[in-house]
Amino acid sequence: MKNIILTGIRPTGKLHIGHYIGAVKQVVDIQNAGNYDKFYLMIADSQSLTDNAGNVQKVKDNIIEVALDLLACGVDPEKTCVFIQSEIPALTEMTFYFMNLVTLSRLKRNPTVKEEIKLRGFEESLPMGFLTYPVSQTADILAFDTNLVPAGEDQKPMLEQAREIAKSFNNLYGNTFILPDAIVPNEKSQARLVGTDGKGKMSKSLGNCINLSDSSDTIKQKIMNMYTDPNHIKISDPGKIEGNVVFEYLNAFVQPDSFKKYLPEYENLDQLKSHYKKGGLGDVKIKIFLNNIIQEILQPIREKRKTLEQNIQQVYKILFNGSDTANKVANETLKRMKKSIGINYRDIIKID
Amino acid sequence: MKNIILTGIRPTGKLHIGHYIGAVKQVVDIQNAGNYDKFYLMIADSQSLTDNAGNVQKVKDNIIEVALDLLACGVDPEKTCVFIQSEIPALTEMTFYFMNLVTLSRLKRNPTVKEEIKLRGFEESLPMGFLTYPVSQTADILAFDTNLVPAGEDQKPMLEQAREIAKSFNNLYGNTFILPDAIVPNEKSQARLVGTDGKGKMSKSLGNCINLSDSSDTIKQKIMNMYTDPNHIKISDPGKIEGNVVFEYLNAFVQPDSFKKYLPEYENLDQLKSHYKKGGLGDVKIKIFLNNIIQEILQPIREKRKTLEQNIQQVYKILFNGSDTANKVANETLKRMKKSIGINYRDIIKID
Repeated sequence: MKNIILTGIRPTGKLHIGHYIGAVKQVVDIQNAGNYDKFYLMIADSQSLTDNAGNVQKVKDNIIEVALDLLACGVDPEKTCVFIQSEIPALTEMTFYFMNLVTLSRLKRNPTVKEEIKLRGFEESLPMGFLTYPVSQTADILAFDTNLVPAGEDQKPMLEQAREIAKSFNNLYGNTFILPDAIVPNEKSQARLVGTDGKGKMSKSLGNCINLSDSSDTIKQKIMNMYTDPNHIKISDPGKIEGNVVFEYLNAFVQPDSFKKYLPEYENLDQLKSHYKKGGLGDVKIKIFLNNIIQEILQPIREKRKTLEQNIQQVYKILFNGSDTANKVANETLKRMKKSIGINYRDIIKID
Repeated sequence: MKNIILTGIRPTGKLHIGHYIGAVKQVVDIQNAGNYDKFYLMIADSQSLTDNAGNVQKVKDNIIEVALDLLACGVDPEKTCVFIQSEIPALTEMTFYFMNLVTLSRLKRNPTVKEEIKLRGFEESLPMGFLTYPVSQTADILAFDTNLVPAGEDQKPMLEQAREIAKSFNNLYGNTFILPDAIVPNEKSQARLVGTDGKGKMSKSLGNCINLSDSSDTIKQKIMNMYTDPNHIKISDPGKIEGNVVFEYLNAFVQPDSFKKYLPEYENLDQLKSHYKKGGLGDVKIKIFLNNIIQEILQPIREKRKTLEQNIQQVYKILFNGSDTANKVANETLKRMKKSIGINYRDIIKID
């Protein structure tokens, strides 16, 4: 069997280091490991519109921002087909027929959707497009005969839904779709980075994220203002590691050679943590250390992004070319799907 | 403003005289009156699949049966664009974006859908495609810039939903769609014909309908077995008109010249009814009268149908040509719609 991988990203804001460590780095690592036949990376604008129908401009603007971020992080259009979801009409047609194979109660049971509905304060005003986006996501996956989907814990219910719909379809209309499996991310990328203020997830509106496109100064400022341990007032005070954002970020970003380069008086993170807990290690010192590490990661990304920004047309060209490729594949799948259902009338009835 | 009319019919069974008097006759009358710029007649196979996902063969078989019935009744492909819903992909794409403009609670409030859900015994197992078919129906209507939709009482909530979605869209994205109005059918076609057994609606599974394609003998047999008044045993007994299927059908089908031709001893239906109520008028007599009237209507339809059956390919050709025409129009509308939303990226970004 071929290995076909698909992953998607919602264009609702510039990417931040939470996206980087949680998804993009893994995507680039998989891409570069080369252990696949096809690799699709979808910019999910249509899905974003399901809860941004009144905010199209945001979604539109962020298609290019996200594309710049992805390419800057090392996504290589020679290896990865990057495309825009709304450019692939076959996906909506597949979604339409999949809707007959899933019930209202099943969709309402989806724990991820439930959580998101709560988060967004929908309820009675729940847009149908949002409630049914797992069906559309199923089409995204099945349209490319994807067998592997990078999926963290919170994405597992989505994949389960896709498998169920594929199974129902195959049972009803004959074997047509591959049942996709999850690529379980490594521990580091599983970690959900909190915002720099320590108050839950990074969010643009809270201004608590470090964007991949932030300037060196902005990054430094955000790190120096990071939430640590409010009771760690004097350097000599013992400090807490739990809930301390600097240490959470160090857990995620520290590299094998980071200490040697930037903090040679410590051997590793455990040593640093135990000193902090005992007392005698100041916040400024650990923040400067974190800043060095993050600047090292983000500097080349930022520079590549700046170069790409010089030629936005070229970036759109990459997205349109990717969409053309994706369209060809999705149209073929749709054809096969309609043949399985038996509604390929023009093939069945030959007209002179 | 142009007058653009659209109506649809579900291909889930051969058409019977209930369809004829309730819809098809009106369609042909409107078509022949010619007071319109475009007239679309959609064979709604995709909509039929929303509650027949496991029964595709029935839907497929009945596309041609319904087409034969329609053409036999006088639908003229030179005047009316007859097309197959599933052949128009733009409809699913429009449906997809409309789904963001309608809430779950709104859809669940639709009285027609509520009634149909009960009728079909869905409930927890309600297929999403079925619950959301009013959204897809909205796409059917708006895709052709329809301003007039023949809609009986039970179809009014559907039209209301279409108007609401069109309004929401126009408010959000600028004026794009015409708000469709109902063509209210005349009294006769409003009447819902009961089955020949008097037990509710005509239904293929109950074997209580007179199909347009039935042979002359079959029609006669069905009429002679019709439910009348179970207490009207002897001819001299007084008879009831209410719930008497023969009189219900006479109400619907009697023509100005029917008495002169087939029952000259009466002047009109009122006279006939009052004699029946008084007693002294037998069921056989009124059944033969009804049979004469219905045979006169169905004989030319049946003969034309037989001729059309000789060249099924030609009928498919009509449907495919109609679908080609419909596709062109719907694709243009979709383009305009995507431009209004602002997701017409390829128009916005010029790539050398």
